[in-house]
Amino acid sequence: MLEAPPIYNIDKLYEAVSAKGHVCVGLDTAADYLPPAERRRHASDAEAVLAFNQVIINASMDCAACYKVQIAYYEALGRAGLDAYAKTLAYIREKGSLVIADIKRGDIADTALQYAKAHFEGDFEADFVTLSPYMGMDSIEPWLSYAKNKGKGAFVLLKTSNKGMRDFQYLQLNTKQRLFHAVGDRLAELAAQYQGNYGYGAFGAVVGADPKSQAEQKEAAEIRERYKSLFFLIPGYGAQGGAAQDAALLLREGNGGVVNASRSILKAWTVRNDSGKEIDNTIAAEAAREAVLTMRDALWAAVNTAN
Amino acid sequence: MLEAPPIYNIDKLYEAVSAKGHVCVGLDTAADYLPPAERRRHASDAEAVLAFNQVIINASMDCAACYKVQIAYYEALGRAGLDAYAKTLAYIREKGSLVIADIKRGDIADTALQYAKAHFEGDFEADFVTLSPYMGMDSIEPWLSYAKNKGKGAFVLLKTSNKGMRDFQYLQLNTKQRLFHAVGDRLAELAAQYQGNYGYGAFGAVVGADPKSQAEQKEAAEIRERYKSLFFLIPGYGAQGGAAQDAALLLREGNGGVVNASRSILKAWTVRNDSGKEIDNTIAAEAAREAVLTMRDALWAAVNTAN
Repeated sequence: MLEAPPIYNIDKLYEAVSAKGHVCVGLDTAADYLPPAERRRHASDAEAVLAFNQVIINASMDCAACYKVQIAYYEALGRAGLDAYAKTLAYIREKGSLVIADIKRGDIADTALQYAKAHFEGDFEADFVTLSPYMGMDSIEPWLSYAKNKGKGAFVLLKTSNKGMRDFQYLQLNTKQRLFHAVGDRLAELAAQYQGNYGYGAFGAVVGADPKSQAEQKEAAEIRERYKSLFFLIPGYGAQGGAAQDAALLLREGNGGVVNASRSILKAWTVRNDSGKEIDNTIAAEAAREAVLTMRDALWAAVNTAN
Repeated sequence: MLEAPPIYNIDKLYEAVSAKGHVCVGLDTAADYLPPAERRRHASDAEAVLAFNQVIINASMDCAACYKVQIAYYEALGRAGLDAYAKTLAYIREKGSLVIADIKRGDIADTALQYAKAHFEGDFEADFVTLSPYMGMDSIEPWLSYAKNKGKGAFVLLKTSNKGMRDFQYLQLNTKQRLFHAVGDRLAELAAQYQGNYGYGAFGAVVGADPKSQAEQKEAAEIRERYKSLFFLIPGYGAQGGAAQDAALLLREGNGGVVNASRSILKAWTVRNDSGKEIDNTIAAEAAREAVLTMRDALWAAVNTAN
């Protein structure tokens, strides 16, 4: 008898994108992104951040495909911060949304298994993680058992949008390919082994959206074409400079990726002019929702124009 | 007036190696490495791990150059695990020893600064961290301000000893160099800017010790020769297969690196024959101390033979 195929989280994410658009809300929540009155109201920054995250989540659940929580911002607040991190993840999952733990872990063998246990079970359970490939495929493979057993997924760093991308990812190999192609080719092999119902593998890739020239736009389109089976987590939108048309180059048939924005959503309240009225979380949440809707619509328009 | 140069932790580590040998005790402490009676004695695995770490630290402080704590093992125990992690780091530092937080973080700009704050201040303060270079030098540079201000240091992944090392680190570039050379060359530039009193930069490299052939031994010697200013954190000893002569290829003038072993020290008690006597932490600590002394002496002998 054939085993029932697992329902991969990547399939749920595909469906969320179809229903709600491409926006991934990045909860890289520094305490100084909060309205000052709300920050003061709480006994600790960690508690203030958690309360802020919750109103942002409530305000965006129907128009965001998923959330990405950057653990660094929580680690920086120590043990209390990691408590807020755990509660943020749990809150998103209880509400029925999907959450990517942006942890960029990359370590081998036994250690990778410990990390997988940490982030796919227990206090810090997420639906997806981000991983870094420098140590090699044996730093990725231990996470795969969780795809089979629990539908979990990961986005592995492929080509990012920061300046330092050129230092190593972009180096040309003796095969004439660049390093990121070597990473992508290996990920495509994995995707073929763990393919979901919509043609995407359980394990996708992080590909930044910030082409600086026509040549880089062409390259983005080539990456999309080359890695048809990889679902992309696309950072670099908004505060980092990327625009909807750029991100659309990395989407495929109206799906195939989520586009992350953090500060432009979390700090949307800072550009509101409420003529002296003190900003609270309610106003911040409204502003965040408007920012998500604007971004969602811009991405939809760009995808439709591109097709 | 000239500012006093900072006292880098890398200088303290150099002095510790001179005084106590090359052993870095890896506290990758899984709960099932503990004597069963000790594990049962505690209310939680996290508490049992902390108590075990403390006896290992007490038993090895005079013969270990430093400690390396692999955060994955603690993350896997959730919030309680990270409490044990924080307390393990604090215990080592209170005792006046040096601790490397093996976290292999690698993220850009603002995020890297948050990680640096997390691991060089507050609850999780360590003397050194490990970093992953895939995202580029802008994922390393934000950590440097802590070298200037607090003497902190880091070991960046260069060439590791796992099988997957060949997947990306070892790829040949169009310059005929391998990827790890590109990383090492950039790290050497940093080391020149942050050079301590013994010729080593505040930021060193992780270089695995597990050459499988004469060609790989030659390569290890070349890496040591090429990167004279990089202090090496050398994993791969013992349980991972490396031996003292192999590790010695990566040392320099009797110093220049610490050699990590974890399981062969933590689980040394499992190979003791105490004819039926139940093993407790006291016996485990004695066994660990013997393992450290044996390893220290083997490394000293190998270094002396090599010179």
